[in-house]
Amino acid sequence: MEAGKAKRGNYFEDFAVGQVLVHATPRTLTAGDVTLYTGLYGSRFAMQSSNPFAKAVGYPRAPVDDLLVFHTVFGKTVPDISLNAVANLGYAECRFLKAVHPGDTLSATSEVIGLRENANKTSGVVYVRTTGINQDGAKVLEYVRWVMVRKRDTASPAPAPVVPKPAERVDPATLGAAVPELTIDRYDFDLAGSTHRWGDYAAGEKIDHIDGMTLEEAEHQIATRLYQNTAKVHFNQHEQAQGQFKRRLVYGGVVISLARALSFNGLGNAFHIAAINGGRHVAPCFAGDTVYAWSEVLETAAIANRRDIGALRVRLVAVKNCACADFPWRNAAGEYAEGVILDLDLWLVLPR
Amino acid sequence: MEAGKAKRGNYFEDFAVGQVLVHATPRTLTAGDVTLYTGLYGSRFAMQSSNPFAKAVGYPRAPVDDLLVFHTVFGKTVPDISLNAVANLGYAECRFLKAVHPGDTLSATSEVIGLRENANKTSGVVYVRTTGINQDGAKVLEYVRWVMVRKRDTASPAPAPVVPKPAERVDPATLGAAVPELTIDRYDFDLAGSTHRWGDYAAGEKIDHIDGMTLEEAEHQIATRLYQNTAKVHFNQHEQAQGQFKRRLVYGGVVISLARALSFNGLGNAFHIAAINGGRHVAPCFAGDTVYAWSEVLETAAIANRRDIGALRVRLVAVKNCACADFPWRNAAGEYAEGVILDLDLWLVLPR
Amino acid sequence: MEAGKAKRGNYFEDFAVGQVLVHATPRTLTAGDVTLYTGLYGSRFAMQSSNPFAKAVGYPRAPVDDLLVFHTVFGKTVPDISLNAVANLGYAECRFLKAVHPGDTLSATSEVIGLRENANKTSGVVYVRTTGINQDGAKVLEYVRWVMVRKRDTASPAPAPVVPKPAERVDPATLGAAVPELTIDRYDFDLAGSTHRWGDYAAGEKIDHIDGMTLEEAEHQIATRLYQNTAKVHFNQHEQAQGQFKRRLVYGGVVISLARALSFNGLGNAFHIAAINGGRHVAPCFAGDTVYAWSEVLETAAIANRRDIGALRVRLVAVKNCACADFPWRNAAGEYAEGVILDLDLWLVLPR
Repeated sequence: MEAGKAKRGNYFEDFAVGQVLVHATPRTLTAGDVTLYTGLYGSRFAMQSSNPFAKAVGYPRAPVDDLLVFHTVFGKTVPDISLNAVANLGYAECRFLKAVHPGDTLSATSEVIGLRENANKTSGVVYVRTTGINQDGAKVLEYVRWVMVRKRDTASPAPAPVVPKPAERVDPATLGAAVPELTIDRYDFDLAGSTHRWGDYAAGEKIDHIDGMTLEEAEHQIATRLYQNTAKVHFNQHEQAQGQFKRRLVYGGVVISLARALSFNGLGNAFHIAAINGGRHVAPCFAGDTVYAWSEVLETAAIANRRDIGALRVRLVAVKNCACADFPWRNAAGEYAEGVILDLDLWLVLPR
Repeated sequence: MEAGKAKRGNYFEDFAVGQVLVHATPRTLTAGDVTLYTGLYGSRFAMQSSNPFAKAVGYPRAPVDDLLVFHTVFGKTVPDISLNAVANLGYAECRFLKAVHPGDTLSATSEVIGLRENANKTSGVVYVRTTGINQDGAKVLEYVRWVMVRKRDTASPAPAPVVPKPAERVDPATLGAAVPELTIDRYDFDLAGSTHRWGDYAAGEKIDHIDGMTLEEAEHQIATRLYQNTAKVHFNQHEQAQGQFKRRLVYGGVVISLARALSFNGLGNAFHIAAINGGRHVAPCFAGDTVYAWSEVLETAAIANRRDIGALRVRLVAVKNCACADFPWRNAAGEYAEGVILDLDLWLVLPR
Repeated sequence: MEAGKAKRGNYFEDFAVGQVLVHATPRTLTAGDVTLYTGLYGSRFAMQSSNPFAKAVGYPRAPVDDLLVFHTVFGKTVPDISLNAVANLGYAECRFLKAVHPGDTLSATSEVIGLRENANKTSGVVYVRTTGINQDGAKVLEYVRWVMVRKRDTASPAPAPVVPKPAERVDPATLGAAVPELTIDRYDFDLAGSTHRWGDYAAGEKIDHIDGMTLEEAEHQIATRLYQNTAKVHFNQHEQAQGQFKRRLVYGGVVISLARALSFNGLGNAFHIAAINGGRHVAPCFAGDTVYAWSEVLETAAIANRRDIGALRVRLVAVKNCACADFPWRNAAGEYAEGVILDLDLWLVLPR
């Protein structure tokens, strides 16, 4: 006798446009999370690493790494949104709206904003807008995500298609909400590890972040559990051995965090991710792969009413098992080069 | 010249009934431990994950996971009790008596309550009652454990046998001491991730917890060191390569924690382990094994003077490399099915 | 187009005697770091493990493990000093000057105190004195290190050689600055796990620390990232596969920490490393190696004006894949025995 109390996740036909899902397990982030995040990725941005550094410029204390916030909120959505996903298709309109500090508690809700059944009737695309809030109900994060989800029953009727068109990029006028007014005179560029301010970067500039980092099963599993992300493909070798890849897949967020940590070398003052304009996990990553990264500055933008900070729109590309001296990306036909695993479009914030 | 200052652990003849052992290394548990515990097992119970959730219902802040308390206390006993153990035979009468919060410091003592030499005179069974206390001297945990320990010298005389008879189960009237009076009206079942209260479960009900988690060497080693547990078999591949299994054994407590974390899916409101009635590590677990779990409700019990919470007696079974849709346990002859690694008898507490 | 904003580290000709390097990324150490350090090495010294234990004797709270302080400061120096190192040649005159507690923020500077080009003109030895300070500018750590660094261009002219002569050992009269005046009457030797005080050790005494610990890739990588140490050889299998060892090298500091943690068994009251007189990484260590350790007391010394504590000068030797019952060290010809990986000369502090 099975109780039916254990959840198997939602299927395509369980979603309806306008539906709001309240995700389980609010999470108090602490100094412990900051430490483990550092141990897993080795990030070196001074703002997130040092309370006195952050206080000197105007934060109450060091903020939590933006991606730890993202992964925590994202992880909460997995049991409701993507447990039966075939593929994670994309992100857009992701904005970091308020700094998160140790002691803050994050919870998340998602609104279904689009649905489109696939022609083969075995799956469909679910579009959600996910919101992460803190213990005071203030929004800390917002993003749109679309994901291909299996149908429980191919005979279920298709919903009327609703296909949102996310913005191609977040409007730079709206950036910087998570950054207090900073006193850049007190920003110590020696301690930050880079002399390059916002104005020192130009569109078209490419930066090889040089270093590579080899991933281990224990590392990506610990990371993904830290986010309480329950996607089976990351954890269950017994099941994965029967699947397409024969191996556990690394959570794409681990690759994002590694690439971001590597990007310190060349973008050392880009202390804040203000927005993720879009992102694609181009190819899977597995334990044993070595991740490299490079960036291209796509655009520079002032931020309205901010003399302290400016924004760079950057393409951050992660590549596996291949150094990035020649910036591998797409070939003439527009296909991704061998080894490219992540193509991320970010707004970064730097001191002016 | 060897100093003799390094300890090699006690042998069977070093124990005497009535002896009290004060275990070394008190341990201040912190937010760091809570984080690393989450990273190692991925537990998702809202009560341990969120300070606001816990405060809303009546805790001063989120309590530390009961099993982190158990493993911390247990770990302290290893150098004195089981460094020369042949086998860990069982647990009983384990009660969680007071909530532990980050900042609390745990220390442990054990009283020898029984001794029985084995017929072959090479070893004997040692029974201890271990008590974990906090920095104020308040008991937080108590349990009976029996373990087969080698003799230093087979010629040593056997002690008079004393064989305690632990209770078959902890009396439900005594449960719940570690749970403050809760305001269940303020318990958010959406955030908890399950709508099922105490009264929604019935004896005989079985729950497949569905997910599987593959263990890595680094994970179980980090976990076991976190508990300052020094049992050699978990850490020393150079020595284990010469042994029966040729591999490091996973600390049984890691399996308990994994099974408990997996049990969230189906028992999401069972936020507290009030007691461990008994437990057996049926077969060893190794890195590379995938752990699944299922539960059977054995009994439901009200708790005296508590309208807020009720107790479920649950058999929690962990199985390796085999999904649990058909609830593998024992065959007709009473033998454990292939793959069963843990058979644990728990009292769980849920909101009424 | 490469921006040149990413750093490739200094080469031999980039250093000048008297030059002071301010290292990037100050780091606030927290309870999270204490936890992860425990999980990685399993250290059991009561002073670092328990706030009440430390407070009882006179610390404001438990101090952070001395080696976590060392590795954190050392890690900051890597991008500036040793990214292009051929070999880490030695340490000397390392003194721990002030206790570090969770919440303290460490930053580091190094002064170049010596330079000597090698005869082959492809590299040279760089001598630095590194200082770690806390958020108040107080020195917490100081050490001399020398490292062989590649030249960018073999044709670069050699600098005038300056070769410092570090002290053979730190003067014991200067030890103990990091230890407050302790009330040894309140030092609980049961909870410390050892009855042996400073006066119970004698020069010439050797101690086998018995246990062995097998290292995993994930463990040493997490440890080394925790210290924000960016040395490529520890992380990049894709590149290392082409190198001399075909594998990632374990950061020598991981071996130091493991040996120190193992040394608890026999030196349980040696709660503080007051100084590192010298150290050599005799041979590389790789994932899969099992690390054992033994110690020899070289010298005992009272500390001026301290009736509470005394110092032991100890050689701490780590050996891989070989138990230490017969204390492997050097053969008659002075060569290190097979398996020896670390030869460290320490001043340890114990209660009198």
